[in-house]
Amino acid sequence: MTGQITTAVFRPSGKTVRVPSGTNLLDLMRRIDIDLAATCGGKGKCGKCKVKIEEGAEDLPSPTETELQHLLPQEIKQHYRLACSIAIPLVPYFVVKTSSTNFMEMKLQTEGRLVAVTPDPAVSKHLIELADSLPSDEETLLNTLREKYGLECTFDYEALTDIPAAGLHGKGLVTCVVYDRRSVVAVEPGDTTLNCLGFAADIGTTKLALYLMDLLTGKELASSASPNPQAIYGDDVMSRIAYSLTDKSNNAVLQKAVLKEVASLVRACCTKAGLKPKWIYEGCFVGNPCMVHFLLGISARSLAFFPYRNVFRKGMTLRARELPVRLNLHPAARLHVLPLIAGFVGADTVAARLAVEKDTSAEIEMLLDIGTNTEVLLSDENGSMACSCASGPAFEGMHISHGRKADSASIEKVWIDPATLDVRFQTIDGAKPAGLCGSGIASVIAELLKVGILSSKGKLNGHLAQATNRIRMANGNRFEFVIAWKQETSIGSDIVVTQKDVLEVQKAKAAIYAGCELLMKQKGVTARDIDRLIIAGAFGQYVDKAAVKAIGMFPDVPIERIEEVGNAAGVGAKVALLSRRKRQEAEEIAESVTYYELALDPDFVRTYASSMLFPAASSGNHPSQNEKETGSDARE
Amino acid sequence: MTGQITTAVFRPSGKTVRVPSGTNLLDLMRRIDIDLAATCGGKGKCGKCKVKIEEGAEDLPSPTETELQHLLPQEIKQHYRLACSIAIPLVPYFVVKTSSTNFMEMKLQTEGRLVAVTPDPAVSKHLIELADSLPSDEETLLNTLREKYGLECTFDYEALTDIPAAGLHGKGLVTCVVYDRRSVVAVEPGDTTLNCLGFAADIGTTKLALYLMDLLTGKELASSASPNPQAIYGDDVMSRIAYSLTDKSNNAVLQKAVLKEVASLVRACCTKAGLKPKWIYEGCFVGNPCMVHFLLGISARSLAFFPYRNVFRKGMTLRARELPVRLNLHPAARLHVLPLIAGFVGADTVAARLAVEKDTSAEIEMLLDIGTNTEVLLSDENGSMACSCASGPAFEGMHISHGRKADSASIEKVWIDPATLDVRFQTIDGAKPAGLCGSGIASVIAELLKVGILSSKGKLNGHLAQATNRIRMANGNRFEFVIAWKQETSIGSDIVVTQKDVLEVQKAKAAIYAGCELLMKQKGVTARDIDRLIIAGAFGQYVDKAAVKAIGMFPDVPIERIEEVGNAAGVGAKVALLSRRKRQEAEEIAESVTYYELALDPDFVRTYASSMLFPAASSGNHPSQNEKETGSDARE
Repeated sequence: MTGQITTAVFRPSGKTVRVPSGTNLLDLMRRIDIDLAATCGGKGKCGKCKVKIEEGAEDLPSPTETELQHLLPQEIKQHYRLACSIAIPLVPYFVVKTSSTNFMEMKLQTEGRLVAVTPDPAVSKHLIELADSLPSDEETLLNTLREKYGLECTFDYEALTDIPAAGLHGKGLVTCVVYDRRSVVAVEPGDTTLNCLGFAADIGTTKLALYLMDLLTGKELASSASPNPQAIYGDDVMSRIAYSLTDKSNNAVLQKAVLKEVASLVRACCTKAGLKPKWIYEGCFVGNPCMVHFLLGISARSLAFFPYRNVFRKGMTLRARELPVRLNLHPAARLHVLPLIAGFVGADTVAARLAVEKDTSAEIEMLLDIGTNTEVLLSDENGSMACSCASGPAFEGMHISHGRKADSASIEKVWIDPATLDVRFQTIDGAKPAGLCGSGIASVIAELLKVGILSSKGKLNGHLAQATNRIRMANGNRFEFVIAWKQETSIGSDIVVTQKDVLEVQKAKAAIYAGCELLMKQKGVTARDIDRLIIAGAFGQYVDKAAVKAIGMFPDVPIERIEEVGNAAGVGAKVALLSRRKRQEAEEIAESVTYYELALDPDFVRTYASSMLFPAASSGNHPSQNEKETGSDARE
Repeated sequence: MTGQITTAVFRPSGKTVRVPSGTNLLDLMRRIDIDLAATCGGKGKCGKCKVKIEEGAEDLPSPTETELQHLLPQEIKQHYRLACSIAIPLVPYFVVKTSSTNFMEMKLQTEGRLVAVTPDPAVSKHLIELADSLPSDEETLLNTLREKYGLECTFDYEALTDIPAAGLHGKGLVTCVVYDRRSVVAVEPGDTTLNCLGFAADIGTTKLALYLMDLLTGKELASSASPNPQAIYGDDVMSRIAYSLTDKSNNAVLQKAVLKEVASLVRACCTKAGLKPKWIYEGCFVGNPCMVHFLLGISARSLAFFPYRNVFRKGMTLRARELPVRLNLHPAARLHVLPLIAGFVGADTVAARLAVEKDTSAEIEMLLDIGTNTEVLLSDENGSMACSCASGPAFEGMHISHGRKADSASIEKVWIDPATLDVRFQTIDGAKPAGLCGSGIASVIAELLKVGILSSKGKLNGHLAQATNRIRMANGNRFEFVIAWKQETSIGSDIVVTQKDVLEVQKAKAAIYAGCELLMKQKGVTARDIDRLIIAGAFGQYVDKAAVKAIGMFPDVPIERIEEVGNAAGVGAKVALLSRRKRQEAEEIAESVTYYELALDPDFVRTYASSMLFPAASSGNHPSQNEKETGSDARE
């Protein structure tokens, strides 16, 4: 105890602050982002800011009239109080417990939906005063962690080496950093409990996304994204594995490339948020099996050959320091990688499933996580089955003449007038267009099909060149379609879709469709059985459900059963960063999903080939109106 | 399974070997140092080589006549067999369990006694064949560890990175290195189960001793010792702490000095044994609190001031790699430091207690671990109490004119003829003397007292210079006594004991005696109550009980109750290296012993001062014959 200062501890989060005695409890809790559902705004009217005082209750004045109105006699006996009505007394420790009923949950947004997470991160910080009384500082700290914070811990070696300087510079007051409620990983001088950051990272084959999060409040502080720098060694996972096997040192080359980019995203996020990377105590990673193998410097050789075995599968925690590239986080920072499922279905799929909670009213659910590898997860009452489709990066804007990542200058939606064949388009932020992002690519193909410029076989109709100058012969005797004229664009040339671009889209959507189809066959499910189809992934910020449905990317499910959720894998990474319970749930998901290896399906080649066709064109916006018995219109 | 090879697993040790089927089981067990008590030598006569076949029993031929003679029908039903009578069948795994009754214990020698330890080290190695069947190599290995070896493990990150290369170079056969039966810390190609080394190290203030041990058999393979290189920064712990506080970087200087010397002792031992340091998986350290704080680079500042608090107290495990000096052990090697007691009583005392098992017939036991700091441990039916005495390094040969470490050229025993005052001496290996080791110093003082050359106040009797030319005036008007003449020595000059040397011995023995006395007072024990007095420590290879008793180093306990045990701390370090059970026992010892701070005892100065006196001289070899009521003759 120094002067008039009380250490206030909030359970279950373990959040701790040193405050002057006399501070109003509700005010304090709001200031430190513990959101009580005090609907009356602290006027003593709603009674919802009820908390239990676990330590220090006897030093409070008797309950006020207001409190007596809202609390039962037995609640008063058990030291329940209204936070709005009490001030923090002068005691060494004042311990407040909020129940889950009045503790606001943190909501994380996928595009359409919110996932509720009560922050309970693996990292917690606890303020402790060192005493002279015991044989060792270690025991003073461990005893206080046990008695005040309910934690049974042991010390990491390095945390022990922190103690002398922390005690000296903190004048006897230190903050213990605890990992997973059992290891003291660092000891810091003074009160640093409010500095507690983490990041979530989605390591995509084509794109990296990183989110800086406040582990105390669960809030996102900044985010940053960039291309995966491994792309120069191969666009897809198979070509990167091949590269990794051509020379002993190549695995390390791939690892260092991605780690350096992660380090730079961390820097970028911290700069945006005006915060120091040294306050980052944990990073949580998701990615497909190849990406996480490369990230960790573990050879992906076994994924190159049947039976496509992973080296590891379970979720894993390591010290950031063990990696060959400095991320400049806190020296004791941990990195957690979510578990994989099997084969080519990885932590990103687990994370997407974590982010999109099961809809209990939907019996049969299909989750598509679209990316350079697209994963399909089909769930029914017998459990979930997953496969991975090598869809390629077309929907991330790669291999498409004017494809680009989703930003303000990307066309995300296109309309073609069926009569004049003239074009309207919309960029993400209304800027002059520089190209097409994934959703724009899907949109333009859907429109070309609708107006009959594109046949179901994927051929641009050259005869229509007479009707519009937007259709023209390009080099090599093949047609292309102009979406935006040079003067409308920011790139000094027309933005076009070529016959080759159409083929890229066909290959991508065929891979995805075939995966869906074969998985459904395994489970004996038809398109009409699917109660909910969730589209996640790197489509840009927006995806036109009708468009992706129209190009036949997945089984013909009624449009009202389709949900877009954006980068669900990224959200799942945040969820797992913020919640130990959700992290545990990730392990359960990963263990329970059955992996289906498409390459072993005798129908794979045939199904893929027939899926190259687009759904029957010119039949209006709702091809599902003319369903076929297979539940699919891709082969018409 | 490859060819005709079976993997044989021995429980409870977990030792594993790959052997050709057809090998006789008893022969194999002997070859790999699993000593069954087969007293008949494998002739089928004693029946003592009974083992239980836990896996593979059904592939053995029916029991032989010999076996039927020695085994009960229900034993046969439970797959008990005689190791001498069976050959290893061709099965994937052949699992043999030996019970503790027929498993020979490893005996570790302290000077006079043996400590029995059944090897059960923290490190175990397990041979496993990788399969293609599961989603990941990680799960194949963890499942096999669970099913075949009864271990519930998780993987360390780095061990995962080992898997691909180990699998490739081991052609699917790998050895898992498991720490503490729960963490896989490395995966090695092929069968490396027989390469499993560890070391025990005693970090003394003045001397370092290191022992290379085979963790499978418990055998000592080599040992090596050297002076503690920190001595140039101060002879005793207090001066080293003072040095460590004079500059920020000095703590690191002390740490690096000792670690470099440990590295060189490891190298020396491996060279002697012809083995590679990379097969060392663990080192077990003991030392006083200051020495282990410095070893780990943890500031000992809190030991510089009352209340002499340690930063840590519990036993601790870290990775060798976390230290700033490379020891060149296996990359995943662990280091374990035994727990401390409190104040200045440390892991060395815990280890000494571990090595010298309690004698159940002795109600009151006193253990002295003599070194630069001497610890006294006094145990009665109410528990143990310990204190630390700043005895200085006199008995390690330091600060004594012709003092030296114990080696072949050190005088370890001296006789003085009471009539002629002539001298006989004995060096450790009969070589020409170069000086006196600790036991020699004690011996010469005892003899000088006996023949009346030395008074109980510690004054050399100059009058006797007329009787013998061995007593002579040296520079500074003070007398000295010649033990060996120039021509008898290997150093080209006389070996003498000076008046200053006597004072050094007085100071050392007074510190030890005062500690014993004050501890006894705390416990209400007198010298005659002590049933067993154990002398451990760095006295050289031999200590003359009568001599150390005669100089009044400790309470006047009858000589037959005194035991010398040599470097018990070093033996304790070996014991803790070899046995997880003993390591646990060390924690219990460290927690149960009460620390007594001598500096706080109001009688300390007076007791120390009066203890400077030697026991009454010239009263024969048994001063205990004229006991005084204090139970001490040091103040006469």
